[in-house]
Amino acid sequence: MTETMPLEKPVTDKPLDRIIDALRDDMTAVDSILTDQLNSSTALIPQVAAHLIAAGGKRVRPLLTLASARLCDYEGDHAVRLAAAVEFIHTATLLHDDVVDGSATRRGKPAANRLYGNKPTILVGDFLFSRAFQLMVETGSVDVLRILSKASAIIAEGEVMQLATANNLATTEADHLAVIRAKTAALFAAATEVSGSLSGVGAEKTEALRVYGDCLGIAFQLADDALDYAGDAGTTGKELGDDFREGKVTAPILIAYAAARDDEERAFWKRVIEKNDQQDGDLDHAMTLIRRDNAVERTLDDARRYGAQAKAALDIFPASPLRDDLQGLVDYVVDRDR
Amino acid sequence: MTETMPLEKPVTDKPLDRIIDALRDDMTAVDSILTDQLNSSTALIPQVAAHLIAAGGKRVRPLLTLASARLCDYEGDHAVRLAAAVEFIHTATLLHDDVVDGSATRRGKPAANRLYGNKPTILVGDFLFSRAFQLMVETGSVDVLRILSKASAIIAEGEVMQLATANNLATTEADHLAVIRAKTAALFAAATEVSGSLSGVGAEKTEALRVYGDCLGIAFQLADDALDYAGDAGTTGKELGDDFREGKVTAPILIAYAAARDDEERAFWKRVIEKNDQQDGDLDHAMTLIRRDNAVERTLDDARRYGAQAKAALDIFPASPLRDDLQGLVDYVVDRDR
Repeated sequence: MTETMPLEKPVTDKPLDRIIDALRDDMTAVDSILTDQLNSSTALIPQVAAHLIAAGGKRVRPLLTLASARLCDYEGDHAVRLAAAVEFIHTATLLHDDVVDGSATRRGKPAANRLYGNKPTILVGDFLFSRAFQLMVETGSVDVLRILSKASAIIAEGEVMQLATANNLATTEADHLAVIRAKTAALFAAATEVSGSLSGVGAEKTEALRVYGDCLGIAFQLADDALDYAGDAGTTGKELGDDFREGKVTAPILIAYAAARDDEERAFWKRVIEKNDQQDGDLDHAMTLIRRDNAVERTLDDARRYGAQAKAALDIFPASPLRDDLQGLVDYVVDRDR
Repeated sequence: MTETMPLEKPVTDKPLDRIIDALRDDMTAVDSILTDQLNSSTALIPQVAAHLIAAGGKRVRPLLTLASARLCDYEGDHAVRLAAAVEFIHTATLLHDDVVDGSATRRGKPAANRLYGNKPTILVGDFLFSRAFQLMVETGSVDVLRILSKASAIIAEGEVMQLATANNLATTEADHLAVIRAKTAALFAAATEVSGSLSGVGAEKTEALRVYGDCLGIAFQLADDALDYAGDAGTTGKELGDDFREGKVTAPILIAYAAARDDEERAFWKRVIEKNDQQDGDLDHAMTLIRRDNAVERTLDDARRYGAQAKAALDIFPASPLRDDLQGLVDYVVDRDR
């Protein structure tokens, strides 16, 4: 009777909350490491870093490292160090991003570059990046260092790639996917892969964890792209059309641009995105075109396709509540409303 | 008859050239690695990085790594990787420095930030930093990674410290030394220490190499501070008074400020350095005060004192032409005219 079984598990309510709950002690340990490692005789360092780290954020990446380690029955105390290292790398990239993008806010607070200036923001990013490597060194595992140093190089490459695609409608969907994969998915993939490596669970399961992180990261970022044109301003942290106002080339824009029916529509997209020359009513017009061509839904379809691959990758692990929740997390990430 | 021996070796003409000559093949291998590792599908990365790396620079740091490895009779092929990693870390810090300082030129060419903008300059710095760690991973040595990740964190701390001391005459000489040690000497010390570690030459000799690099780095930076007020505009790459125009708090300035004879002199230094409010004739007046108080010579005396410690550290190694040249390099670094 397998054909009557649902192909997809139903979207669980709060797999993220259940994972957080299962790993509460470990996450507390990670938070302690983050705080301890910010210690410096130079007061500005903990100030700038804590501003961002204390602002919270979802801590998805360190959670993925811890959950992957648990899935591999890892019982040592290095997973919390790696989770902290992953969060430091993520924080370092956010600090540098905020300088590169001239961001005004981050996590609902003024961005570090606005509060402290670009100089400390760049340098504290460098500091966190170095601290991340010091934490990895403490695990004594060269493989872990290999995985995360490679991911870091790929992230930086992705950021540089994005400079070239940012306001460029000649970006292909494949280009955009390459940027997403490098900028976002590389760290997700490394965050899960390192736990497989650390646990010594074998090449096949380690690779499965890497694929899970990679596909989850892609799904996460595509959903993020979609959210900017789909979110309900009441419930989302992100304001509707933030990406639009920056002229960001994201998946819904590429889909809508490819579906443009005449030169007038193409000229509209070029003006608002490539020239970033926007007037009152442009966002409304863009939303009309995006809805007509189902660009948000098609972006989410892509996200779900990658999500399905993420879920399938974990099938190699024995069934367990944690595995179910990591698979449920995929649906949560794609269908979240913020 | 030891008492008739000169306490210091005479300043050799070109110990640096002789070291370069002895390590020519290794340095060629390092250059190949630098070029290979810049390969990226993202064209902007080799462009921005090569702009700086091809501009040359003295390559002192990778040379120190190679020379230290040779001094330890290391015969493997990892030293060239580490030398390249050290140069990448140095290049990454220069790129970020140029953004932080808004530099106009570097190594006689327009600075990368001016040619390519701040964004690629920050991100390519991040990329080089990651590549450096990937190169270290190839050596398979966690100790090497420990030494260089720690140095990287210290460098970033030093840069942040410097933001606080930059135009601040309340900086003590000890504060300034701490900045110099972190910003400059930490990488020199790591560059020499890693070779001891890699060679397995034992804790005592590895520590001796670290002390050599640390003291040489301090001497190097103090000499650099001095050069800005002593250099002959004809022969120096650096223009006389560059530091002065930026209101940089360096060793000669701190010595002259401490020696100020009245409130008027103190007010002068506060105006030109702390407020960075300078008029025609201010540099001449500053030079008069600096000369009256022997601030350049006293800075160079300090440099020589650290230099002597650097030389003494190497006495633990058997006498050899290379050891002599590494000791001679100290005098060259202190008494160079550019």
